[in-house]
Amino acid sequence: MELQTAKGVRDVYPEEQLLRQKVIAVLKKTFEKYGFSPLETPTIERFETLSAKYAGGSEILKETFQFEDQGKRKLGLRYDLTVPFCRFVGMNSTLKMPFKRYEMGKVFRDGPVSSDRVREFTQCDVDVVGARSILAEAEFISIYNEVFNELGIKFELRINNRKLLNGMTETVGASNAEEVILAIDKLDKIGEKGVSAELKQKGCNDKQIKQLFELINTTDLSKLKKLIKSEKGQEGIKELEELMEYTKGLNRVFVPSLARGLAYYTGTIFEVYASEGEIKSAIGAGGRYDKMIGAFLESKQEYPAVGVSFGLDRICSVLKEKGVKSRKTPTQIYVIPIKTVKESLEVVKELRSEGINAEMDLNERGISKNLDYANSYEIPFVLFIGQEELKKKKLKLRDMVSGNEEFLSVEEVVKKLK
Amino acid sequence: MELQTAKGVRDVYPEEQLLRQKVIAVLKKTFEKYGFSPLETPTIERFETLSAKYAGGSEILKETFQFEDQGKRKLGLRYDLTVPFCRFVGMNSTLKMPFKRYEMGKVFRDGPVSSDRVREFTQCDVDVVGARSILAEAEFISIYNEVFNELGIKFELRINNRKLLNGMTETVGASNAEEVILAIDKLDKIGEKGVSAELKQKGCNDKQIKQLFELINTTDLSKLKKLIKSEKGQEGIKELEELMEYTKGLNRVFVPSLARGLAYYTGTIFEVYASEGEIKSAIGAGGRYDKMIGAFLESKQEYPAVGVSFGLDRICSVLKEKGVKSRKTPTQIYVIPIKTVKESLEVVKELRSEGINAEMDLNERGISKNLDYANSYEIPFVLFIGQEELKKKKLKLRDMVSGNEEFLSVEEVVKKLK
Repeated sequence: MELQTAKGVRDVYPEEQLLRQKVIAVLKKTFEKYGFSPLETPTIERFETLSAKYAGGSEILKETFQFEDQGKRKLGLRYDLTVPFCRFVGMNSTLKMPFKRYEMGKVFRDGPVSSDRVREFTQCDVDVVGARSILAEAEFISIYNEVFNELGIKFELRINNRKLLNGMTETVGASNAEEVILAIDKLDKIGEKGVSAELKQKGCNDKQIKQLFELINTTDLSKLKKLIKSEKGQEGIKELEELMEYTKGLNRVFVPSLARGLAYYTGTIFEVYASEGEIKSAIGAGGRYDKMIGAFLESKQEYPAVGVSFGLDRICSVLKEKGVKSRKTPTQIYVIPIKTVKESLEVVKELRSEGINAEMDLNERGISKNLDYANSYEIPFVLFIGQEELKKKKLKLRDMVSGNEEFLSVEEVVKKLK
Repeated sequence: MELQTAKGVRDVYPEEQLLRQKVIAVLKKTFEKYGFSPLETPTIERFETLSAKYAGGSEILKETFQFEDQGKRKLGLRYDLTVPFCRFVGMNSTLKMPFKRYEMGKVFRDGPVSSDRVREFTQCDVDVVGARSILAEAEFISIYNEVFNELGIKFELRINNRKLLNGMTETVGASNAEEVILAIDKLDKIGEKGVSAELKQKGCNDKQIKQLFELINTTDLSKLKKLIKSEKGQEGIKELEELMEYTKGLNRVFVPSLARGLAYYTGTIFEVYASEGEIKSAIGAGGRYDKMIGAFLESKQEYPAVGVSFGLDRICSVLKEKGVKSRKTPTQIYVIPIKTVKESLEVVKELRSEGINAEMDLNERGISKNLDYANSYEIPFVLFIGQEELKKKKLKLRDMVSGNEEFLSVEEVVKKLK
């Protein structure tokens, strides 16, 4: 048997996992600072839920891992955290609104694999349901700012509004709004020429195309206001103005061509990109989806909802690219007993009781092998414990970076390491 | 469509998730204190890996969720974290030994469902590979003590040794060692009578059965030493003596009938039970499995390994039973703007910048609805911000438990909440 991982999935080595934990800690702290609570939904959902009409749609369903349990029930691995969240809210009609939750968990896509696309990855989502005011969106812009500033990542947070996009298609009199919006969304990828060709293909005439480009190139909201001949579009502009007002001083930019593929967005949409380095994919995205949860329910009651997602793997890639180093192990000190196993166990115990991450040679190896071990895991300090040192109550501490050695009591070692 | 979760899986509500996070934080801190590093293996493995001869065995394989990707590759959801760990070690021949890792992740079993058995649960595993010395086991006993003491759970940590169990069957001359050991393992469940009947069925005669009971009832290692007529059994006793010596003063008890089902253990075995409350299932378990990793490899090289697992869900059940309360939300203060949205946003910003978890009304609701919201999530403080209060720079803070109200500056609010 050849040992290998399944296609498109991978092991996360300790060094990378330690970096991830740092990012996760920043996310968790920030989400809670904004009043979001942790929720955990299962990895496995009923296939019926994942394939519901208002869930992720046919493209994503094609990439859903499907299987059955022993009772022949049709199941699937979730492809995002939004559908399980909607299912949860729908099942819990007594939830006090607004309900604010965050969830970090694995999601799965049985699609093509590339350096940027894997089949199992961690999403970090934060959503509020039951909040109609644009203040909710303002909070997410603030969260994005806080997280990326704390992580030291230069970023561009793009915002737009689906109502405005619909208003643009209404203004130019395009009949197939959804397709026109999807074409506009490709501006970054295929350029004006490409979008223009696609719009033509979708049935837009030259005048309409020209007009559309005029609109998506107008980044001044007050100018745009005069060009939009559509009630819905004016509503979108009003929401954007309000959002810009609430988030004065924060890093965000209005991008009229931003559309985001997913059909379920109804208002504000967000996308975040790192504005340094080589990672070109979004490191965060989200938006308002006022109709999705209700669509899961018989009552068709509307549940106004907004949420954003953080791409953990891509954020870590940006950090690694920036040269952010993480430790190879959390161990701070490695203890080498020289025929003093029992006594060394006591010393290790004392170090740990002071909160120091301490490891001890478990194999009664020689000194050079032990130093080689400590070096390979980049453990910063090594403590040698021989009979002589124990008698004098002075243990030999070696700084593995400088090579300096000194003789210290256990208390002094603790002080030094703290 | 009826909204429901898949059979045997469930949502973890914020209140429970906050409790879990506390337990996870204790585990993580302790594992790192003992020099273990985080590793993350994928949820999806090749079915070939999960079904390898030396993996979990046929019982567990029956309960493995199986499926295919679009390329018709046979895949499965991992049923534990040990098999992926062995696969990882086998694939990474340059790992510096000993390699010490912890992993907390979801595992899946397509089996019968009960209050105690679900189909998707979180395991917290900590393992060392490349450590032959019994010191490794001593470290795990210490970890168990530290974790359960910190969590305030009274526990019984049972230890035994597979070599001793094999030595017992050799001593009485039983031919089918594995089956005899599996029968003995049921002592707690079916009592001496039941075990006796099962041993008879497995071909033991009355004398052998009597002798076996004498052995498993001898909890004094020095007495047992005299009764065991088997080299392997003596080796097991020596290892147990050494382990008891290294762990003097720690909570652990030698239980000669402890066997643990899994075939892959080769030496020390552990099981931990809560010694208070109604949770009768093990909250932790593990042991030494020196042959398992090598069995995955062509070279058949031996990789001495020991590991233990913590049952997160059961530990949380014990804590809940003990009445350990967790918050319903991490939010510390709820801000109610009274026609002061913009100014209140500034106050909230200031509170958060001081590290306080602060939430603000997003719906411009009236005071009583807002208080009702704060009450239902048990948010400890509410801050009212009206024009008058802003002018005087004294905001009204209400302690939601006592009902007391006072007028404070933002700085004073911060001080109070910290």
